[in-house]
Amino acid sequence: MEKIEKANAEALRRLLAGDPVLVDLVPAAEAIEGLGKHHILHAGPPISWERMCGPLRGAIMGIAVFEGWAKDLKDAAAKAEAGAFRFEPNHHYDTVGPMTGMTTQSQPVLVVENRAFGNRAYCAINEGLGKVMRFGGNDAEVLARLAWLRDTLGPALGCAIRETGGIPLKPIIARGLTMGDEMHQRNVACSSLLLRILAPSLARTSKDGEALARCLDFIGKNDQFFLNVAMTVGKALTDPAGGIEGSSLVTAMCRNGTDFGIRVSGTGDTWFTAPVEMPVGLYFPGYTANDANPDMGDSAIVETVGLGAFAMAAAPAVVGFIGAGRASGAARFTRSMGEITAGNNLEWTIPLLDGLGVPTGIDIRLVVETGIVPNINTGIAHRKPGMGQVGAGVVKAPMLCFTQALEAFAAKLGVVY
Amino acid sequence: MEKIEKANAEALRRLLAGDPVLVDLVPAAEAIEGLGKHHILHAGPPISWERMCGPLRGAIMGIAVFEGWAKDLKDAAAKAEAGAFRFEPNHHYDTVGPMTGMTTQSQPVLVVENRAFGNRAYCAINEGLGKVMRFGGNDAEVLARLAWLRDTLGPALGCAIRETGGIPLKPIIARGLTMGDEMHQRNVACSSLLLRILAPSLARTSKDGEALARCLDFIGKNDQFFLNVAMTVGKALTDPAGGIEGSSLVTAMCRNGTDFGIRVSGTGDTWFTAPVEMPVGLYFPGYTANDANPDMGDSAIVETVGLGAFAMAAAPAVVGFIGAGRASGAARFTRSMGEITAGNNLEWTIPLLDGLGVPTGIDIRLVVETGIVPNINTGIAHRKPGMGQVGAGVVKAPMLCFTQALEAFAAKLGVVY
Repeated sequence: MEKIEKANAEALRRLLAGDPVLVDLVPAAEAIEGLGKHHILHAGPPISWERMCGPLRGAIMGIAVFEGWAKDLKDAAAKAEAGAFRFEPNHHYDTVGPMTGMTTQSQPVLVVENRAFGNRAYCAINEGLGKVMRFGGNDAEVLARLAWLRDTLGPALGCAIRETGGIPLKPIIARGLTMGDEMHQRNVACSSLLLRILAPSLARTSKDGEALARCLDFIGKNDQFFLNVAMTVGKALTDPAGGIEGSSLVTAMCRNGTDFGIRVSGTGDTWFTAPVEMPVGLYFPGYTANDANPDMGDSAIVETVGLGAFAMAAAPAVVGFIGAGRASGAARFTRSMGEITAGNNLEWTIPLLDGLGVPTGIDIRLVVETGIVPNINTGIAHRKPGMGQVGAGVVKAPMLCFTQALEAFAAKLGVVY
Repeated sequence: MEKIEKANAEALRRLLAGDPVLVDLVPAAEAIEGLGKHHILHAGPPISWERMCGPLRGAIMGIAVFEGWAKDLKDAAAKAEAGAFRFEPNHHYDTVGPMTGMTTQSQPVLVVENRAFGNRAYCAINEGLGKVMRFGGNDAEVLARLAWLRDTLGPALGCAIRETGGIPLKPIIARGLTMGDEMHQRNVACSSLLLRILAPSLARTSKDGEALARCLDFIGKNDQFFLNVAMTVGKALTDPAGGIEGSSLVTAMCRNGTDFGIRVSGTGDTWFTAPVEMPVGLYFPGYTANDANPDMGDSAIVETVGLGAFAMAAAPAVVGFIGAGRASGAARFTRSMGEITAGNNLEWTIPLLDGLGVPTGIDIRLVVETGIVPNINTGIAHRKPGMGQVGAGVVKAPMLCFTQALEAFAAKLGVVY
């Protein structure tokens, strides 16, 4: 239908025309309107405490203690059970978060402004590897690190980012794609490129050499530091493409460990959900698929803008890392995602494919027609609260989300699919 | 012959067993024994002032003024003509230098120790892009930058490197190969990875935030900062493989803008030289092949250890940059160099080739038998003194070096080839 083609062309134009710039880093309560006490934003579509998986509950218990809303983990669980906390998706507040995706008032958040459209998006700082809250960790070590992020790294980074006057992020991602990053499982290039931009400003705004050294060390040793930046970019790019009447392009994909949810431009803020699948991949020594929680996190926002599994051809090393076959077969992942997307991003190209742009703009019609669902590169959390990461792999978005969305989309347009 | 096979196995073993560690950065006179006043080390095999090309003369004039051995460029040229300076190859002093390769007493040099064999190698700091001495630049801007390297960046980096206790370089290069670097034309990944290791130590040892910021900024904006480190690694790895009786493996390749020279393990310190060829590649706007000087620099030491053009499959983006065809054809460069090498480096592997190690240990017998000469990725200098870089491309080592070497090698062994 011509109306749909026109609407999709406009949605794709907006997706591609965005200009995401890292402009600030401030406590969440300052950036996110309406975020207050006892208010916990989480990854994925809406979900009640009763239906939450282990790691999501673990993270909520931890963050409630961190914010001073509970005296210990047990107290936090009891309070959650009793309805003392307000749970809402990050996505309802222009925000995203990896895995459990905790966002609460005192955590520092990255602020990315899409200068082409004026909207802003937010995401907490990446905590590094090991035992971390995004994988459901909630012990003293996890909370102490969050306190250091809040009290030391966050303020230092905030000063440095403001001193730069804003860091355009599209060129960094473009370069990362020529350096083996796909911005989901692998962010080592972009993390390093961002650090070398930030380091001089950190030095200029720091008053304490040892604290500065610790900040540089923390970022420098965290290959996934840029993941949260890339996710904020994804959110900043997709929001302006939402709410276009007649557009069948996906504007969000996310998971809360129980449900997978998508949003489609033409159907606005409605979530289409289905049970989330189990990632297929590699486990850390001592763990198996029996330990794994179904997939979680808002991080699939990077696939929504053509990165992650969609850009696998740029990152042959990732294919082996997540146990998805031979490195030389990386290109087939990208080509396959090209079957379900509306176009290619000519600013984000893949050298190995002779400059082909990453496939962008998932069309729910193409997903249903071809039977090809989006692939998502992902980490794997332990299914019990407090345990952390046990592996990494690839997960498929459930087809049911797309068939439901297409039915609603067609009904709204008064057509039959 | 069994003797040759045994000797080559030992030479290859030494090439692969090396453990290069960045241990220090000090003024050249402190590191390099016998380097004194009026003493100028240059890239390539030995050459007299009379036979030197334009950019090499330009660099010598500049460095003589920088060291205070001449009052201006004209005076420097007259003194050089009159025999006031002693010219010798870097290679005679465990040293390498890119392009013109100036090494003189007061310049700070990187010190790389090969901990498996105890030898050390040296190279000056990379000056960045634009008008620089390695491309024959010699004006006030060039000399001012060299003074800042000597007085500020050099001492700061020296303190930081010593504070780290030594930085193992093989793992950084291994990672760089998974990030699109081949360590000759492209060093953006390794430059960034090295900076993120150095930054905390720079912060800990710095007393002045603004000077620190300038140092971080200089390294952070120089994608080729790591080139000189990679070259020092090459020199540190190849030196222990020299002087093995009966080995036909190449231990050095270098050029001075007039001659191309190689050394072979079994023939020790003898240089086999031939007229250097012209690179084939791309020129900066406003320049053509008519402006180009024939190839120069000690940088081909990286190809000698399997990097640069030998690792092209790791760096598809480079193929386009130097005008050597389609990016997707990068692998054929590496496979072709596999025809003339004794083995593969299993510590330096290429994801796209499913973990194949870079081809290492150029065998002069294979070069002569196959007719395939080593490819070298390179920058292109203007042929006149003081002009600088005009492009980048690929150059072939002249076959004449290898046929001469094979004759001498055979004569020494008493065999006929």
